Amino acid sequence: MKLFLRLKYDGAPYAGYQVQPGRDTVQGRLNSAALALFGTECDITGCSRTDAGVHALGFCATVTARGTQTLESSVPLENIPSALNRFLPDSISVSDASWKPEDFHPRYDIKRKTYMYRILNTPQRDPFLAGRVWHYPRPVTDAAIVAMRTAAASFTGRHDFTSYMASGSKITDAVRTVYTAGVTRDGDEIHFTVSADGFLYNMVRIMCGTLIEVSEGRISPGGIPALTQARDRQAAGRTAPACGLYLVNVEY
Amino acid sequence: MKLFLRLKYDGAPYAGYQVQPGRDTVQGRLNSAALALFGTECDITGCSRTDAGVHALGFCATVTARGTQTLESSVPLENIPSALNRFLPDSISVSDASWKPEDFHPRYDIKRKTYMYRILNTPQRDPFLAGRVWHYPRPVTDAAIVAMRTAAASFTGRHDFTSYMASGSKITDAVRTVYTAGVTRDGDEIHFTVSADGFLYNMVRIMCGTLIEVSEGRISPGGIPALTQARDRQAAGRTAPACGLYLVNVEY
Repeated sequence: MKLFLRLKYDGAPYAGYQVQPGRDTVQGRLNSAALALFGTECDITGCSRTDAGVHALGFCATVTARGTQTLESSVPLENIPSALNRFLPDSISVSDASWKPEDFHPRYDIKRKTYMYRILNTPQRDPFLAGRVWHYPRPVTDAAIVAMRTAAASFTGRHDFTSYMASGSKITDAVRTVYTAGVTRDGDEIHFTVSADGFLYNMVRIMCGTLIEVSEGRISPGGIPALTQARDRQAAGRTAPACGLYLVNVEY
Repeated sequence: MKLFLRLKYDGAPYAGYQVQPGRDTVQGRLNSAALALFGTECDITGCSRTDAGVHALGFCATVTARGTQTLESSVPLENIPSALNRFLPDSISVSDASWKPEDFHPRYDIKRKTYMYRILNTPQRDPFLAGRVWHYPRPVTDAAIVAMRTAAASFTGRHDFTSYMASGSKITDAVRTVYTAGVTRDGDEIHFTVSADGFLYNMVRIMCGTLIEVSEGRISPGGIPALTQARDRQAAGRTAPACGLYLVNVEY
């Protein structure tokens, strides 16, 4: 059996999820905590490689011991979240642990992933949201929200999303299925929530930057299908900053 | 005229509000920002001296130029919050600026202050609330919330609050009027909100620690008046940590 974890992290202090030599990463912290708890080197496999500054509310990862040791007998399952959290910094928290079959893969077996992008739309920044939202001070009207919502709806369906992929990406098949894409206002914040069978590099951030350009009147809300059909990064809007992005949920 | 500011700050990075030599403080940051913006040394007077790690949502302060210079002509009032924020760290944000008469005092003229104490009541901590709540993992039942609410109601009225003052305080008159004191559950959090004409040193934190002991059954919900009448710090509960405390509002 493979140990399966759900966890939350504040991505602000990290150089992204994936281990990089000499950098502080979420995976590096999980490796250290697993070694401290289980007393053996472990392999950690994550559901995604989030960028520097990107956050997670429902990240998934598996933990397997290297060599012949198994993890089943070492710590009772219900104690694993608290026990791992004792070896993790405050910015990472394991919320749940369970067992999965040996052939389960936390990235390849994903059926659906959901991201949320948070925009703080107030004249002055909020100290409690520093590094956790994109502070966009220009007022976004209700009419602009409606336009963003219309534009977001055009992202849904099965499309080639090359226009919303960071230039330089080596992915050759950019066809993905977006199940839902919506824009809501929640108090002082604007949230863009999107779920799909998979995402390209920077896809949510470019979609969000495109929606902000819709709100600014630079892109028409009915113009999204043409942007998508262009299959050209230059056709879409700018890339919203990493700090507003949250991996919300992964479904298998 | 005196420049009057309302501001928010995340207290986690600071050694409290008040300037201390060689320490990073909120007042010290405000001093530097005012000097940078107005080009002259200013005196900053705050509404309160919050402790290290304590947060503010509605802190009030006045700014006056030293010597003969006045601030009125230097920067248009409506631009002052944004202009000061450019010289402040992300953890401090000025939300509003206005003019007050010369004889206004941000501490002596207070009619009512409101504090909120946030408790996160979940088995595992939340990375996004690190340093911003008291993480109390033991489950608090609905019946315990009712008991806490009964106990909190006994704080209201005009009393000598010596029992809820840090021992060693030099205050001789510990009589204060508590206008409202309530306990609510808000999702995974428990909030204790209290407003009064003034507060003693650590008063809200000791009240909150006492309420948690009510939830634990160590103090009976009807026992608060006797604790108060004891006028003895030993009679009340423990002191809740600074990180959960927020100065919410000040009224003049």
